[in-house]
Amino acid sequence: MRATVIHGTRDVRVDDVPDAALFDATDAVVRVTHACVCGSDLWPYRGIWPVEGGVTRMGHEFMGVVEDVGADVRTLRRGDRVIAPFAFSDGDCEFCDAGLHTSCVHGGYWGGRNDGGQAEAVRVPWADGTLVRLPDAVDLTDTRLATALATLTDVCGTGHHAAVSAEVVPGSTVVVVGDGAVGLCGVLAAHRLGAERIIVMGRHDDRLDVARRFGATDEVRERGDEGIARVAELTSGGAPHVLECVGTAQAIETAIAVCRPGGTVGHVGVPDGPVGLGVAYQRNIAVRGGVAPVRAYIPELLADVLAGTIDPSPVLDLTVTLDAVADGYAAMDERRAIKALVTLP
Amino acid sequence: MRATVIHGTRDVRVDDVPDAALFDATDAVVRVTHACVCGSDLWPYRGIWPVEGGVTRMGHEFMGVVEDVGADVRTLRRGDRVIAPFAFSDGDCEFCDAGLHTSCVHGGYWGGRNDGGQAEAVRVPWADGTLVRLPDAVDLTDTRLATALATLTDVCGTGHHAAVSAEVVPGSTVVVVGDGAVGLCGVLAAHRLGAERIIVMGRHDDRLDVARRFGATDEVRERGDEGIARVAELTSGGAPHVLECVGTAQAIETAIAVCRPGGTVGHVGVPDGPVGLGVAYQRNIAVRGGVAPVRAYIPELLADVLAGTIDPSPVLDLTVTLDAVADGYAAMDERRAIKALVTLP
Repeated sequence: MRATVIHGTRDVRVDDVPDAALFDATDAVVRVTHACVCGSDLWPYRGIWPVEGGVTRMGHEFMGVVEDVGADVRTLRRGDRVIAPFAFSDGDCEFCDAGLHTSCVHGGYWGGRNDGGQAEAVRVPWADGTLVRLPDAVDLTDTRLATALATLTDVCGTGHHAAVSAEVVPGSTVVVVGDGAVGLCGVLAAHRLGAERIIVMGRHDDRLDVARRFGATDEVRERGDEGIARVAELTSGGAPHVLECVGTAQAIETAIAVCRPGGTVGHVGVPDGPVGLGVAYQRNIAVRGGVAPVRAYIPELLADVLAGTIDPSPVLDLTVTLDAVADGYAAMDERRAIKALVTLP
Repeated sequence: MRATVIHGTRDVRVDDVPDAALFDATDAVVRVTHACVCGSDLWPYRGIWPVEGGVTRMGHEFMGVVEDVGADVRTLRRGDRVIAPFAFSDGDCEFCDAGLHTSCVHGGYWGGRNDGGQAEAVRVPWADGTLVRLPDAVDLTDTRLATALATLTDVCGTGHHAAVSAEVVPGSTVVVVGDGAVGLCGVLAAHRLGAERIIVMGRHDDRLDVARRFGATDEVRERGDEGIARVAELTSGGAPHVLECVGTAQAIETAIAVCRPGGTVGHVGVPDGPVGLGVAYQRNIAVRGGVAPVRAYIPELLADVLAGTIDPSPVLDLTVTLDAVADGYAAMDERRAIKALVTLP
């Protein structure tokens, strides 16, 4: 089969690899219909994360059709359309029971030494626990709907996790640090949870346009101390709820700096280095969050996407075929696209 | 009057300074009867924190007798015995109302350019909001009781804040990182809040003895990776509630490392540098806490001390007079004492 493989910095190719196949009795094989390129895929692409062994499978966001199931798979069968969260999980351990599927005792991530999502097919461990079946009535020829559903594999749930971690409730005043796909989904999630005021920190016109469509009420384009001062001015001293959707130490420090004493920062970006917590200490700001247990959130977010009450599809503003996946990476790398959708026949 | 002043590294003296006096109408002047030396006093004492301007007042933990009140003070009068938390606060702003007195819009700390607590008297701003009056029946000639009450100025409330921040509830399994006065008070607080298992990480026999008296069920003497592995073994993968009571970046990282996925670290020590949050991210561990709003906790802890249900007095294991305050610093610096009480006539 064909699968996306990274060979080195800015060198992503679609190679011939062995077909995805059942291995354990709890596995399924899913033929991929939609995959996405994630902002975190850009870390190895840009050479910031080393590419282990020189060659590794790419992609952790996909949906598709079940092609085969192992003997112990109970809830899925060939032909089911499914969404995969970016991590697999048994659905049955202490942590899955607590809604923390990313800490599943049998869990893991797509890509690397596992099949990647930017490919024709994927072996899915713990298929019953991992995959979410789409209702039969869902029409995937509806491009907008299919695009919206594809965000449930990661960014929509990750933005939601930022909002949940930041303890957003109806009436909240919220700051969202970052206007990438996750930040935009954070705006959407804060709005969905009833936030009254949503201040987005970003500087890209196209993205801020989406932020406003998603419910942002204010934007702060200044960076660094200037941006922090601007938020302090808008909020009379900081917002009680801050979503950190960038994932650098600097972004987390900015998130803390714009947070009100006693407030909460929800962080979902992978920290790239140690974080200064002095301001958090002085102001008793909680720093919560982490890698999003997207599996836990898919059912409720899926229901809202299908009901039409949320539409995260605008974050996927470029569509490419699998053969052209490298164009998707390049467009995101050069900020010509927020996020790329990969469609397969 | 006589007051403790730091002149440089390991150079703490009792100097003649201008008498504490009313300045604002909301002030009181308190004659100090008991003060303490805090672990954080050792930072400037050891030269780790620069001494601003070369000379600065010391001490932020004291209790005493009201000697004078300003025209706007409503709830206190001359002769009242009072406990002062380590920060002053107006008791009336958004943050005080939320129980976050250390973020009071009119707040500040003792020492430095304010009067310090290790002195004959202190000018107390916002006296109504800051001071807690002792019931008339309290017998301060009872040395044990007076010692226990002196811990309410800081360490007892700070340990409590660590436990509250770590979300300790009845039945919790808890790790306490650090066996200093705050760590020991953290053990006491966790026990008071109903924790079932309390694992203390420390290595000093005398302190671990106190920890056991305060409710610790297990002790881990190993440090670093060995200590982390030992806690993982004792808890089958980490404790859901961890109290960080040291206040170095390394201690916070250790606290995160012994925390269970989805768990909470309550930190109350001043971080001395940036903190690696990678493990917190991977495991969705919340890092909460900060400078303890001790004022908020004094009423409930005072009630328990007076009722005899908690006795934090063993953390103050050395008593000195004001003239000998330098001996208290030296004993703590050399770890001959957990914490020093300063008594004044």
